[in-house]
Amino acid sequence: MDQIIKGSFVHTPTSDAFEFLPDRYTVILGRTIQGVYTELPEAWSHLPVTAYDGAMIIPGFVDLHLHAPQFEQMGLGMDHELLGWLREHTFPVEAKYQSAPYAEVMYSRLVKALAANGTTRAAIFGSIHAESTLILARLLREQGLGAFVGKVNMDRSAAPPLLETTEDSLTDSVSFAESDRFDAMVKPILTPRFAPACTPALLQGLGDMASARGLPVQSHLSENEDEISLVKTLFPDFHSYAEVYEHFGLFGRTPTLMAHAVHLQERDVELAARGGVMLVHCPLSNLNLASGMMRVRPLLKRGIRIGLGSDIGAGHSLFMPQIIISAIQTAKMQHQMHGDQPLSLAEAFYMATKGGGEFFGPVGSFERGWEFDALVISGYDELPIMSRLEKFLYCGGPEQIAARYVAGESMAKKSQSFMDNESNIFPPHVGLHRGRN
Amino acid sequence: MDQIIKGSFVHTPTSDAFEFLPDRYTVILGRTIQGVYTELPEAWSHLPVTAYDGAMIIPGFVDLHLHAPQFEQMGLGMDHELLGWLREHTFPVEAKYQSAPYAEVMYSRLVKALAANGTTRAAIFGSIHAESTLILARLLREQGLGAFVGKVNMDRSAAPPLLETTEDSLTDSVSFAESDRFDAMVKPILTPRFAPACTPALLQGLGDMASARGLPVQSHLSENEDEISLVKTLFPDFHSYAEVYEHFGLFGRTPTLMAHAVHLQERDVELAARGGVMLVHCPLSNLNLASGMMRVRPLLKRGIRIGLGSDIGAGHSLFMPQIIISAIQTAKMQHQMHGDQPLSLAEAFYMATKGGGEFFGPVGSFERGWEFDALVISGYDELPIMSRLEKFLYCGGPEQIAARYVAGESMAKKSQSFMDNESNIFPPHVGLHRGRN
Repeated sequence: MDQIIKGSFVHTPTSDAFEFLPDRYTVILGRTIQGVYTELPEAWSHLPVTAYDGAMIIPGFVDLHLHAPQFEQMGLGMDHELLGWLREHTFPVEAKYQSAPYAEVMYSRLVKALAANGTTRAAIFGSIHAESTLILARLLREQGLGAFVGKVNMDRSAAPPLLETTEDSLTDSVSFAESDRFDAMVKPILTPRFAPACTPALLQGLGDMASARGLPVQSHLSENEDEISLVKTLFPDFHSYAEVYEHFGLFGRTPTLMAHAVHLQERDVELAARGGVMLVHCPLSNLNLASGMMRVRPLLKRGIRIGLGSDIGAGHSLFMPQIIISAIQTAKMQHQMHGDQPLSLAEAFYMATKGGGEFFGPVGSFERGWEFDALVISGYDELPIMSRLEKFLYCGGPEQIAARYVAGESMAKKSQSFMDNESNIFPPHVGLHRGRN
Repeated sequence: MDQIIKGSFVHTPTSDAFEFLPDRYTVILGRTIQGVYTELPEAWSHLPVTAYDGAMIIPGFVDLHLHAPQFEQMGLGMDHELLGWLREHTFPVEAKYQSAPYAEVMYSRLVKALAANGTTRAAIFGSIHAESTLILARLLREQGLGAFVGKVNMDRSAAPPLLETTEDSLTDSVSFAESDRFDAMVKPILTPRFAPACTPALLQGLGDMASARGLPVQSHLSENEDEISLVKTLFPDFHSYAEVYEHFGLFGRTPTLMAHAVHLQERDVELAARGGVMLVHCPLSNLNLASGMMRVRPLLKRGIRIGLGSDIGAGHSLFMPQIIISAIQTAKMQHQMHGDQPLSLAEAFYMATKGGGEFFGPVGSFERGWEFDALVISGYDELPIMSRLEKFLYCGGPEQIAARYVAGESMAKKSQSFMDNESNIFPPHVGLHRGRN
């Protein structure tokens, strides 16, 4: 539907500063922004106008790393580090997703929570179960979200119910990627869990599949020191963690997301820069699992692209402003320790919108040719616009999101559960936004 | 009123573990717990029983450091470090509190927000203005909260509207402490802002006043490296920051709270241990102002008592579970960097309840002789009790607090605004708990 949205827009066309566009008419043709005008051009005066006077409109949030089955375990078991937490908490939870009816119930909660929290695009790990992960893809479409969704591959280093044979893992990945559940908004992504959970044969098969079918890739890189030691043990011929993925064609040959990147060697950084790999900073998760803190500034200086991820369930919130603030806080600690220039609010906001959005195409900015993803934010009306944004990001909550658009489509119109009464999806006693389930 | 509260209680009588007391009758005589019973003793069967079946009851939260006038600036100006932030953001805001009507409006919002967030006791900095700070004291009483409230002293290093003469500062502090606004629940505390804002004559006068009147003391210690340099410049004869306070009788001669303690010298630690000074860990604030991260474990090993503080407005949340989680996260980073044993959830919860509560007397635990401060928490009913607590602390919000008690008194009964309909104080579109104002 072609339409016009009127309101006051704030975004980060570049990472170094916010741009404020007060009282503008944004003309949207289908999914895409045709232009942003101070006065409505005659040529478009026939289009319907939705006016959000007094509200602030920002790009939708992009969550570049989260584990769908772990939604139910958010906030639990945070006394572990990565490998123990996977063994004791995560794998038993993920095993439950071999049941499709269970996945249907739990994933529909997750998808509603994502929308309620203002996430409009996400890159998501499912479980090894192709059927359940396709249910997730369908629910995302029904909710009107944009996503890359991956069936997880792991043929070693996991307990039996979550262990696949190499062959099954590859076969299931092919049929998963070919499913008609996918469309222009919800797409498949190859998802080797992480190098220690995959044999060389599986990595080779997935790398071949990525190249042959032009499929993007997501995985984990250098999150935890014990994990890195495990990679050294399992892949003794490689000089760095990233080299493993790179060798098998899974590190930038097709568009690639790598989560964490907390403990990088120089060789990893070189390969990420050369391959145009997008790193996903998950600061809440890295703090919760005592993994460490990504050194963002030196990576940005090398030209590496960085987005943000909630990484639930190791992260404990889906609300991207909390991830933005945590990214700023950890960058301040890297300033304290290493003298790295801290991240500005604009830089962290950029990572959660246009920076991460780039993985989905022209997403995360209010520019001509960009897809119209937007959140209409209410509250703090008495403050100047930049203070309103600061207050929302530091102190606000999803209950302030009055409307959501993804690729030009109003979520209230797309989804019946939103249409009834959008504000009803997060009554105070349901608190979806904080991840109760 | 003597009464019985029935429900399932969770608390930390010691810092090393949670104790779970399912389906107990807690007998409360006036302010104080007479006993906690699995079956109601005949002797108390005549008392009225309030049953919270299915809910979880935890001690009220203790916020040991916050700045009342800064409530309105939460989440703003976080691109500064301490001294620039004080000059550019905080002092202009605090100057507004010379107006008593302004203080009445803003402090009544703060006091409601504290209650909504589940804080039952707090140690609070006002501004230099005695009249406005006494308004705060009255509002706290009316709301039914327990508090130490301090008129701030500063006779140097501030801009003129916030600068006092030494004599006025001392005279106002005497009349402030003698005000009939105080009672057993809301008490005065001497509050030199921090050493750099006080001349030796002022510190001497306050130290004499503390000893003569048995008044407790609160201030700031070693928050930021530039601040510490300033102390060295202004007090060249002293070997450490704490020595300045100690010399003037403001470091443990009477009960003393010192906020931050991020960059301590060995001499500071010795003096804190010897003086029984309670340190207040404010991790969110320390991250936001890039101050650093307190090394909690070595201080605990020296027997130093540590409570938690929101430190709004440098902190951006009044909700103490967020401070608990931030304390755990920063301790995990100290584990990463220095090998310090991380804080368990029980240890951080203890700091926010019984640990900090000790400054108010027997507060923060469900033991015989303890004052009954409690929060009734709803939600996550399907989980085992310890998981419910974890979920609430990591993912929950103030909207889950179904009832509040301070010193045996139900806040719903105490305050008319709560009595009408307690849940109405935090409708989703007001969001008081996240600090909108």
